[in-house]
Order: sequence, then C-alpha cells, then structure tokens
Amino acid sequence: MHPEVLKKCIEAQKSKSILANCSANQKNNILEHIADSLENNKEVILKENKRDLDLLKNSEGYTKAFHDRLLLTEERISDMAKGLREIAALEDPIGEVTGMWKRPNGLQIGLTRVPIGVISIIYEARPNVTIDAAGLSLKSGNVVILRGSSEALNSNKALVNIIQQSLNNLNLPAASVSLIEDTERAAALDLMKANEYLDLLIPRGGSSLIKTVIDNSTVPVIQTGAGNCHTYIDSSADLESAYNIALNAKIQRPGVCNAMETLLVHRDIAPDFLPKLISALTDQGVEVRGCKKTTMYSTLVKTANHKDWETEYLDLILAIKVVNSVEEAVEHINCYGTGHSEAIITDSYQNSRLFLNQVDAAAVYVNASTRFTDGMMFGLGAEMGISTQKLHVRGPMGLEALTSLKYLIYGSGQTRM
Amino acid sequence: MHPEVLKKCIEAQKSKSILANCSANQKNNILEHIADSLENNKEVILKENKRDLDLLKNSEGYTKAFHDRLLLTEERISDMAKGLREIAALEDPIGEVTGMWKRPNGLQIGLTRVPIGVISIIYEARPNVTIDAAGLSLKSGNVVILRGSSEALNSNKALVNIIQQSLNNLNLPAASVSLIEDTERAAALDLMKANEYLDLLIPRGGSSLIKTVIDNSTVPVIQTGAGNCHTYIDSSADLESAYNIALNAKIQRPGVCNAMETLLVHRDIAPDFLPKLISALTDQGVEVRGCKKTTMYSTLVKTANHKDWETEYLDLILAIKVVNSVEEAVEHINCYGTGHSEAIITDSYQNSRLFLNQVDAAAVYVNASTRFTDGMMFGLGAEMGISTQKLHVRGPMGLEALTSLKYLIYGSGQTRM
Repeated sequence: MHPEVLKKCIEAQKSKSILANCSANQKNNILEHIADSLENNKEVILKENKRDLDLLKNSEGYTKAFHDRLLLTEERISDMAKGLREIAALEDPIGEVTGMWKRPNGLQIGLTRVPIGVISIIYEARPNVTIDAAGLSLKSGNVVILRGSSEALNSNKALVNIIQQSLNNLNLPAASVSLIEDTERAAALDLMKANEYLDLLIPRGGSSLIKTVIDNSTVPVIQTGAGNCHTYIDSSADLESAYNIALNAKIQRPGVCNAMETLLVHRDIAPDFLPKLISALTDQGVEVRGCKKTTMYSTLVKTANHKDWETEYLDLILAIKVVNSVEEAVEHINCYGTGHSEAIITDSYQNSRLFLNQVDAAAVYVNASTRFTDGMMFGLGAEMGISTQKLHVRGPMGLEALTSLKYLIYGSGQTRM
Repeated sequence: MHPEVLKKCIEAQKSKSILANCSANQKNNILEHIADSLENNKEVILKENKRDLDLLKNSEGYTKAFHDRLLLTEERISDMAKGLREIAALEDPIGEVTGMWKRPNGLQIGLTRVPIGVISIIYEARPNVTIDAAGLSLKSGNVVILRGSSEALNSNKALVNIIQQSLNNLNLPAASVSLIEDTERAAALDLMKANEYLDLLIPRGGSSLIKTVIDNSTVPVIQTGAGNCHTYIDSSADLESAYNIALNAKIQRPGVCNAMETLLVHRDIAPDFLPKLISALTDQGVEVRGCKKTTMYSTLVKTANHKDWETEYLDLILAIKVVNSVEEAVEHINCYGTGHSEAIITDSYQNSRLFLNQVDAAAVYVNASTRFTDGMMFGLGAEMGISTQKLHVRGPMGLEALTSLKYLIYGSGQTRM
C-alpha cells in the first residue's frame, strides 16, 4: 500500500477508540476550539489559499467557476467557523439507545448508536468541505481521513494543520483528522481498497469522481449527489402554484443537485400552462429544450433529444416533456431519474397517492419545490451530502448517517439450549 | 453483460414496482401458497435433489459434510415450508412510518419504510437458502435474483420452479424470484457489476465466497458471517457460570458463526478455572490450543501460535490465552476479532462497562453465551445472515434490514427562499 496512506490508516485506527469514547462535551469543546482557531488564523489560511489560487491561474484547468469554488475570503472562513459552532450545537447521536427489550430467557437486549469508526472522504476543490467533513466526523465520534484535490492542497494543509493543533491542545489524537497530501490517483486508489482500515468511504463531488469511487472501491461507499430531478404538473394542479414551484425549482439555485432538470406537464393543461412558463423561464435566461409537443407552445423552445432526459444540467437549462397521464410521468421518472428528489403538483388525492407510492426516490414531494431536499431544510442540521442509494441512509446525510449500531446484551449466566 | 444475467436483471426491474406495492395480505398469501406447494411437490424436489447428490458422489469435491448440506429429506422440505409460514406470520415492515414532523414553513415531512428493490443473493450448496432467501425477500417486497452453486443446481431449479408457479397462480410476476442457472464464475462476476439493475448483493457462505464478492462487486454488499468470537473470563467472574457459558459457547454447535473460537482468561483465576475447564473440553472432544501460560495448566493443551488467534475454526477446536487485565482482553479482541459476538463474564460493574463500551462488535455480551446472536434468539424473527459490517445493518439481518427509507413531503405550494 502507498506509504502515506498506510501510515495515516494505521494512525487513524489507533485513534478510533479514543474518539469513539469521547463525551459530547469533549467533542463540542474541540469543535469550538477549531472554530476559534480558524478565526484567529485567517491570515495564514488566506495566504495558503492564495498560493492555490495563483497556481490555478497559471494552469490549464482555470475557469471562473473553479476559481470561485476554491476561493476563501475572511467571510467564508467565518462561515466555516459558524458551521462548526452549529454542529457543536446539534445533539450528540452517539450513545442513544434506539431500543431495549427483554427475551423470555431473561436476556436484556439493547441497541445503541456507536460511531462508524474510520471514514474517508474523497472530494474536489472546495476547501470548506475540509472543515465541514471534519466537523461532522468529529461530532459523531468518527476518525476521518480526508483526501482533497491537488488544486486545494495548500489550503487543505493549512486547515488540517489548524484542526490538528486544536486536537493536540485538547489532548486528543491529532490523527483523528488527517489529510492525504499525495494528490496522485494511486494514493486515492489505495484508499479505496483499504478495507482493513476504513469502515466507510464517501465521495463528494461530480459524477465522474463518484463513478471512479464506485467502480474501484472495495470499502463500503455511500453514493451521493447525482440529482436528475423532475417536477410533474398534473392536470388538476393549481396553475399559479405550479408556476411558482417550477420557476423556483429551476432558477433559485440551478447548480445544485436538488434543482429541477426536467419538467413533465400533463397534456390537458399544457396549452394554458406552458406558454406563460416558457416565457418566464427564457426571460430569466433559462434555455428550454422540449419534446415535439412542447415546441408547439413557443418558438423559444429547442428540440430535446433522448440525451436531455438523462442529463443533470446543473445549469440554466430545462428539459420539458408533455405527458398523457400521471402513470406516464411516473414511468419517465423511474426510467430517467437518479432517485434524488421528485415532485408532483396536483389537487388530485388519488394521483398524489400514486405518485408518492410509485416514484422510487429519496424524497418525493406533493405541491412543493424539490429545492427543499437538504439537511437544514428537513430539520436534520448540517449534512455530509445527499445519499441516492438505498443502503444505510437515503436522502440528506446528517449526523445519524455517520453512526452504526451495536447490540448490548445483559445476561445472568444464560446458555443456549 | 452475460445474456442470462442481463435478461433476468431486466425482468427483475420490471417486476420491482408491482412487488413493492403489494399489500401484506398479498405477500402472506404467496408465502402460504409456496409453502403448500413445497409440501405437495416433495417427490419432484427429492428426485431433483437426488440428481444433485448422485453427481456429487462421483465428484472430487465429495465430503460427508458437503453431502449433508446438500441433502433434502421430507422433513427438511417440511421445515422449509414451516419457515415460510413463520415469515408470513411476521409483521410487514413496508409502509411503516418511522417519523413525521412539520417544518416552520408548513412542510410536513415523513419517513416511510420501502423495499430496497432488487436484491441478489450468491450462496453455496444449501438448497434451504433458496427458500429462505426467497421468503424474506418477498415478504419485504423485494425482487430477488438467486445464484446458488453448481452442486445444487437441479434442486434449486425445482424449488424456484415451484415458487414461480405460485407467483403465476396468484397473478404476480414470476420474475419476482429468479435463479441464474449458469453456475460459471463469469455469470456471478457480471451480477456483481450490475449496478444499473441491482440495489444490493448479499453473499451467504464461507469466507472465500465473501472475499470474492467484496473484491469484485461494485453493487453495494452486506458482508455477513465471519465470526471469530471471544469469551473473556474476568477475575471477578462467577466461575461456575463462566464454566457453563464457555462450554456452551464452544460445544453446543461449533460449526456456526456465533460459536466461541478463543477463550481469554484473567491470570488471577486461571489456576482455579483452566484445569477443570480444559479437562471438560477435552472430554467432549475439543482440541485445546493455548498460550504458554495455558499449557502449564494441562498436558492436554497444544501450543497455540499467532495463526490461532485469527482463525475461525468452526470446529471442535479452541484457542485459550491468559491475559493480565480486561484492557488486554479488549485489545486482543479488537485486534483479532471479526466484529461479530464477544462476551465478558464478570461481576465487576466497571469492567462490564468498559467491555461493553470499548469492544467493537455487532453484539457484546455480559454474562451470557455468544451463541445467542441470531435473529430468532434476539426476537427479530427469521434472518438473512449476520452482518459484520457497520453500514446499513449490524448483527442479525431480519426483515427490516431488507428495507430502505423514503422521505414523503406534503406541501401546499412551498418554494425555497
């Protein structure tokens, strides 16, 4: 195994039981300490971030959007500190007893929440993920091995250095949060195979990163992020509400995974609904690509092809399809959706039930914008991403998603017959 | 992709939403129907099973134990039918609302239990697993693709044929339960990569099967079965109780994953405890392999080497180590254990707490035999195996382990600010 990866995996394993047995007070203290330390070390962080930004400027990969993701400012550092204080304020999930019962033979069986152990997070050039992921991992008693991208290396090193100093100051193992500094692919691939040391691997980033992790990882993975989200406007929908929700789902923040990518409209209301909506969308700079029927309602609509139904644009582009029934809408969604967030706008009790029961996704909405799929909006607190898989956690991954369970059995000499 | 695998994957996907939306009554009816049909078709099943047994007799792989695993009898078929009726009697986990709350903006958010979707199970030559796995999958609304071993092919075909006839008779898709009949490795490897069609893969069998699946699968896997279980006799233990528990954990059924493989004994009680225990164990045909100190208590003890600490014997063999403290016992367990079932026998409150908190395993016992780790014994009903991983489910996998969750959000026109 890659020497740096092996070394950090071994150190992580050694820290595991100490962190798992920290009290909520200890964990909250460390989060507050890191938050203060971030604010007291803004200059160092900004200096290191500037080194990353300067390298980016001279590289081929430079785009304005990339620069913005990588950029730290005084305000963004304050936001990271604020995020940590918010995590500190959340309830500690560890130690909760989710059930306890007694068997006929007198055995008392309890199920209690424990940390997962050692988590690794592979992510792209957003330095705020470093603080975010470290904060959520620490609060849930997990050791975390971070692996950011090369473009953010200096920023990440500065941030992890601050975290480790805080850990040292509070007599906790510095290896509770570590950073793999080798940003070559080989190091990441070795992390993905480190089953002996890692309990969970979470990729955070675009679809190609996630695909690489799924294809190569033998460590259990939680798949996050892909959101080809739909909104279906039923024939019985309140059209004003449908109009507001559709605009919100597309425009309010088009670059995120819970934004709408395809709008499905029942044929009966298409003539009333689509011309006005398409005009509003294009006024707001949205490029509309529609099925053949959709193109008849506006000359502003380009013709969509099959590719459009499966594309997560993450941009001011919307695909529109006119459908004949709620069943056709459900079928389209279950065929092309990524199991993230799907909405029906309707006043039909029966169609709302059908949609809720038959659409296979993490979050299924009636009469609301898909933009609400988010740990904060759901009331779960900060999140580690949105799971689109069925195992372990589905939807926003809050602190509880970073825990496992353990059976505790209290006996008095029982043996099995 | 392998044509048979692809065909059955596509058919499974088509059946998914029908099965997911079956009522508990429908699912129980199908289980009862299959149970009756098994009993009415005993002759066909036994005939096909005999073909498998005859082939085995003439093969290199023949052992008495293998023959016994593969063998079906009238009684074993009745037991399979009984098992299905027991599954029918369990509560349907699907549709349970595990939580519902209201957000300040009026959104009502509910979390409901849904089937996982399409599950594949790869297993070895135990035909009863075919019925067991099909029953648990159907009851939890999941479509299942079975992949048994070549030695059981005729038996499995007969059993799946009976299941599919029952499905047909009750107007449910036959593809709800299917069998991959090609038992070549290539077919199994293609199943392990069928992420587009499968939501979960469960290997059931020995450690080499499980390792192959973990190393090759890109589909999410639940790791089951490996049980290198320990019992630690603390210095404060009631020695009579410790004696009974140790014998039970080793001898009652040595071939299963929750049987004890290594006994750890505190040095202070070793002189009182070990001679009598070792004598009882060897009387019962157990081969005892001990650390240097252990060998001093009996001439019947062979010297253990490092390999013994990490071996799951699944046989009448026991490794024994004398330790200096509860901390050393915990360290040994966390180093060599497989995270299955671990027990402390003690009368010390403090040591029991330390052991429960610090041992990292699915089931941690105080003063009872590790043999209780089992869905039935825990009161969860029939199980699909014992998970030794941290994600999704840990310990016995009952019906709930075969479910996922879905957020249902009831709005009244909400959009995000």
